[in-house]
Amino acid sequence: MYRSHSCGELRNSHIGTTVTLSGWVSKTRDKGFVVWIDLRDRYGITQLVLDEDRTSKELLEQARNLGREFVIQIKGEVIERASKNANIPTGDIEVLVSELNILNESKTPPFTIENETDGGEDLRMKYRYLDIRRNPVKNNLIFRSKVTMEVRKFLSGEGFIEVETPYLIKSTPEGARDFVVPSRMNEGQFYALPQSPQTFKQLLMVGGMDKYFQIVKCFRDEDLRADRQPEFTQIDCEMAFVEQEDILNVFENLTKYLLKEVNGVEIESFPRMTYDEAMSKYGNDKPDIRFGMEFGELNAVAQHKEFGVFNSAELVVGIAVPGAASYTRKELDALVNWVKRPQVGANGMVYVKCNEDGSFKSTVDKFYDQDDLAKWAEVTGAKPGDLICVLSGDANKTRTQLSALRMEMATRLGLRKPNEFAPLWVVDFPLLELDEETGHYHAMHHPFTSPKPGQLELLDTDPGAVRANAYDLVLNGNEIGGGSIRIHDKETQATMFKHLGFTPEEAKAQFGFLMDAFQYGAPPHGGLAFGLDRLVAILGGQETIRDFIAFPKNNSGRDVMIDAPAAIDNEQLKELNLKLDIQE
Amino acid sequence: MYRSHSCGELRNSHIGTTVTLSGWVSKTRDKGFVVWIDLRDRYGITQLVLDEDRTSKELLEQARNLGREFVIQIKGEVIERASKNANIPTGDIEVLVSELNILNESKTPPFTIENETDGGEDLRMKYRYLDIRRNPVKNNLIFRSKVTMEVRKFLSGEGFIEVETPYLIKSTPEGARDFVVPSRMNEGQFYALPQSPQTFKQLLMVGGMDKYFQIVKCFRDEDLRADRQPEFTQIDCEMAFVEQEDILNVFENLTKYLLKEVNGVEIESFPRMTYDEAMSKYGNDKPDIRFGMEFGELNAVAQHKEFGVFNSAELVVGIAVPGAASYTRKELDALVNWVKRPQVGANGMVYVKCNEDGSFKSTVDKFYDQDDLAKWAEVTGAKPGDLICVLSGDANKTRTQLSALRMEMATRLGLRKPNEFAPLWVVDFPLLELDEETGHYHAMHHPFTSPKPGQLELLDTDPGAVRANAYDLVLNGNEIGGGSIRIHDKETQATMFKHLGFTPEEAKAQFGFLMDAFQYGAPPHGGLAFGLDRLVAILGGQETIRDFIAFPKNNSGRDVMIDAPAAIDNEQLKELNLKLDIQE
Repeated sequence: MYRSHSCGELRNSHIGTTVTLSGWVSKTRDKGFVVWIDLRDRYGITQLVLDEDRTSKELLEQARNLGREFVIQIKGEVIERASKNANIPTGDIEVLVSELNILNESKTPPFTIENETDGGEDLRMKYRYLDIRRNPVKNNLIFRSKVTMEVRKFLSGEGFIEVETPYLIKSTPEGARDFVVPSRMNEGQFYALPQSPQTFKQLLMVGGMDKYFQIVKCFRDEDLRADRQPEFTQIDCEMAFVEQEDILNVFENLTKYLLKEVNGVEIESFPRMTYDEAMSKYGNDKPDIRFGMEFGELNAVAQHKEFGVFNSAELVVGIAVPGAASYTRKELDALVNWVKRPQVGANGMVYVKCNEDGSFKSTVDKFYDQDDLAKWAEVTGAKPGDLICVLSGDANKTRTQLSALRMEMATRLGLRKPNEFAPLWVVDFPLLELDEETGHYHAMHHPFTSPKPGQLELLDTDPGAVRANAYDLVLNGNEIGGGSIRIHDKETQATMFKHLGFTPEEAKAQFGFLMDAFQYGAPPHGGLAFGLDRLVAILGGQETIRDFIAFPKNNSGRDVMIDAPAAIDNEQLKELNLKLDIQE
Repeated sequence: MYRSHSCGELRNSHIGTTVTLSGWVSKTRDKGFVVWIDLRDRYGITQLVLDEDRTSKELLEQARNLGREFVIQIKGEVIERASKNANIPTGDIEVLVSELNILNESKTPPFTIENETDGGEDLRMKYRYLDIRRNPVKNNLIFRSKVTMEVRKFLSGEGFIEVETPYLIKSTPEGARDFVVPSRMNEGQFYALPQSPQTFKQLLMVGGMDKYFQIVKCFRDEDLRADRQPEFTQIDCEMAFVEQEDILNVFENLTKYLLKEVNGVEIESFPRMTYDEAMSKYGNDKPDIRFGMEFGELNAVAQHKEFGVFNSAELVVGIAVPGAASYTRKELDALVNWVKRPQVGANGMVYVKCNEDGSFKSTVDKFYDQDDLAKWAEVTGAKPGDLICVLSGDANKTRTQLSALRMEMATRLGLRKPNEFAPLWVVDFPLLELDEETGHYHAMHHPFTSPKPGQLELLDTDPGAVRANAYDLVLNGNEIGGGSIRIHDKETQATMFKHLGFTPEEAKAQFGFLMDAFQYGAPPHGGLAFGLDRLVAILGGQETIRDFIAFPKNNSGRDVMIDAPAAIDNEQLKELNLKLDIQE
């Protein structure tokens, strides 16, 4: 038996008992006549003590020579500490060591195994197995496990069945970002790894499974933006015989349950906002509503004056940044430069200081008098002390730019509090999205998303105006889930395909298999998928998913710890009937 | 709202209430003046009724024309049935339909959606989404979901953390059966899909995760035997600071918990048997101990007579088949032919009828008298009425052959009862296995399996005799789990590699990464993995895993429903820097 207790377990009540502990040597303090060792395992740290009075010379010497991260087993008596440590649960006691057994030695780790480490990101990733010993990473992984367990408890309690769908599926012509897997047994043929179990969950609905969920890995071979992973995890859900309202209720309840169980936060009910409202109020379909700074559209009050820039703009729109009237000229210039960075892309920014005395001072005083600016303040909700920031131009682009500024200012002002949770349903997404390059519409969600009742006719006259039974769940400015009610009847589906520019033959080639299945009594159905990595990160009060993944990949899709991907040998390629085709 | 109740919910207490139901038309019985419809969903079947007295003509006509598997929604009043059906929970009531809404039509399904279907295996797999509507398949999937939920509840309760390990990993030189995944972003390089998370779970132990589990898909690109799948699911577990006994305890408790929660069966404690004992008693390292027919070794009593076949055999071994003395000559000949089939491979079989009067009649009466045969009966435990079947030859082969016969006879005699559960630990597996072709030893489990304490020296003198800290959990003659205590110190590991014929360079190339990690304080650790597909099938009282998998692949690794794997287009190959290399 390697241990009688964990290193996080001993308390005052154990004083006087003999215990056996195992763990890693986290720290050794050698005062000559006395040696203290912090012994660490997953559950905590227990202080060990050896001294000249009570410990044999040999043992003391052995303890003195223990290196960092050595794995040891000790036996000893739990005693009261002279100077207690209120910061750790075991801080009242220490263990007087009577036996010490080195289970394994350790080379000096390349970074310190502490909450705040001296290891940079690259080193931590290369030695991820050591990084995981650190509390912040370890606790994130434990947190993730707790979240998934609670998700399963809730959904099982609601009658959902977890069904495993296959990982070796079929590549589809539009699946350009599929990872493929050559089949040795089927010469020249490939499986594909699923980008999501979408087809299979819809088939399970055709199969009468009624309520399905799965926590499942998905794969996408795309150029990775920061904080994306080629393999990611979804909580994938689908229900039959439901309308949008049924789905929103179930998954609002799931999210409430998680917030309560995991974060101890109770939220009565989630606000809902249409896509159009989110775009006009926040310039963003996943607004962070933990703070205000709602958009004020200024066309009516800022156009038709002498300021040509605004007059020629499709949209003039501003936000009132609380307390920022006190910004210095230098700070303001920096802010203007910030919005002009290529990542944001504004041509410039007009601003108005709302002075404490009720007067205004703007960069466009030449064109607007105090009464004009007072109207701007009214529209943006600016109060004395605020700074009104105004952007103008093409409506969509300007909204996106101002949204970026709004988020930036909120971050600077500390308004994005990680322990405050503001969930929001964004509903009524457009069914179709115009591809600016090709001039064609394509499905915003996917081609099986159903239009709002009665809007099918609009597809002919004003396709961009058609709204879908599609919804996103937003938490603190991040999309954590999204889904839709699916089309289940073939007439609507045929109309959709026509408008997406598919000939019946093309539709059959790409989606024929699912369409065939739908001819055998597909029930009305719909669903939702949560991005687990992000959900867990946000519930954990962070925005970076990487530290909630045990073994993440870097931005080139590489696992630097195991050094994958890697070349494989020719024998293996030959067995797969493949040749490399690399341009020198 | 599509329904107020499910189709499995209504009882006497609902009589008089108005309900809305949705589901599939399972059966329509048209008696002219009255039409009954069985409406089916996941939860059950509810009988609908429409008749000339109480239903409008139009509605009755509409009901009459409903096809099988049409999806409908109805509204109506719950009424008492005239002739009740005690076979279904809703059998006391029916619903008098007042409104009927066709939600979707259905083509006539290619087979009947009944517990006993007229569809063959191929057709069922092609239309798996219809097959899943059938109770036997649907219930298996629900059962699987329940088992995994209970596994997670138990292990979470024991402090295990579920950690997701990566699917896109690295192919190893010995990983000839790895599925590989070309990386678009890393030219000419490949990921591999994991055959198991073995490396990562050991790294998690190095990382201090202490108790890890994961229910996880694994992949193996091998020629498929019947009832194997290229993707399969494991319950993968690992613990640190444990000895074999700790692991056996935890997973015995898990299995007991499952048997109780899922099957309502309580088992006090699982018997244990060494590998050697299992081989000599049952000729099999996963013996089915639900029945006897233990091997009796007959060398001492059957050799040194005139019968050359036995005299020259390494092993003479028999079993007593209960009640089979009554077999006719024809049946006995058939049995001899059965053991001579290439799948079994015996050269012949000697048998002894144990007559009810205490006398014996054998095929070798020329060489053995009644006293001789009485000794055989004693050794095999044969009673009057039994048939002693005796095989001889090379010890290992003969044991395997007799084991096959034992299982066959048990099946014929109905001794393999699906609702009887006989778990068994098989322990002390050999560390090494002799490859008869090459004459080299290789690791029986894997090269990180630790030898029994004190046996390391034996590696030099008698490698085949070294026993490992390796164990299998056997249930009803199937290996449902297996694992080992791992080597965690580099000296033992180096010795192992030497004996497995690896040069230090080769060992470094293949396992260097894990060995590096082990230098930073690897704790003593060990684990176990269950094959979930088989575990679920056996707990479900069946031996075929396929019907416990939602979308299984066939013996060629194909998904006949979606027709995968399939060719991919040249554009995609080019992006992956690959060319097909197919011999015409």
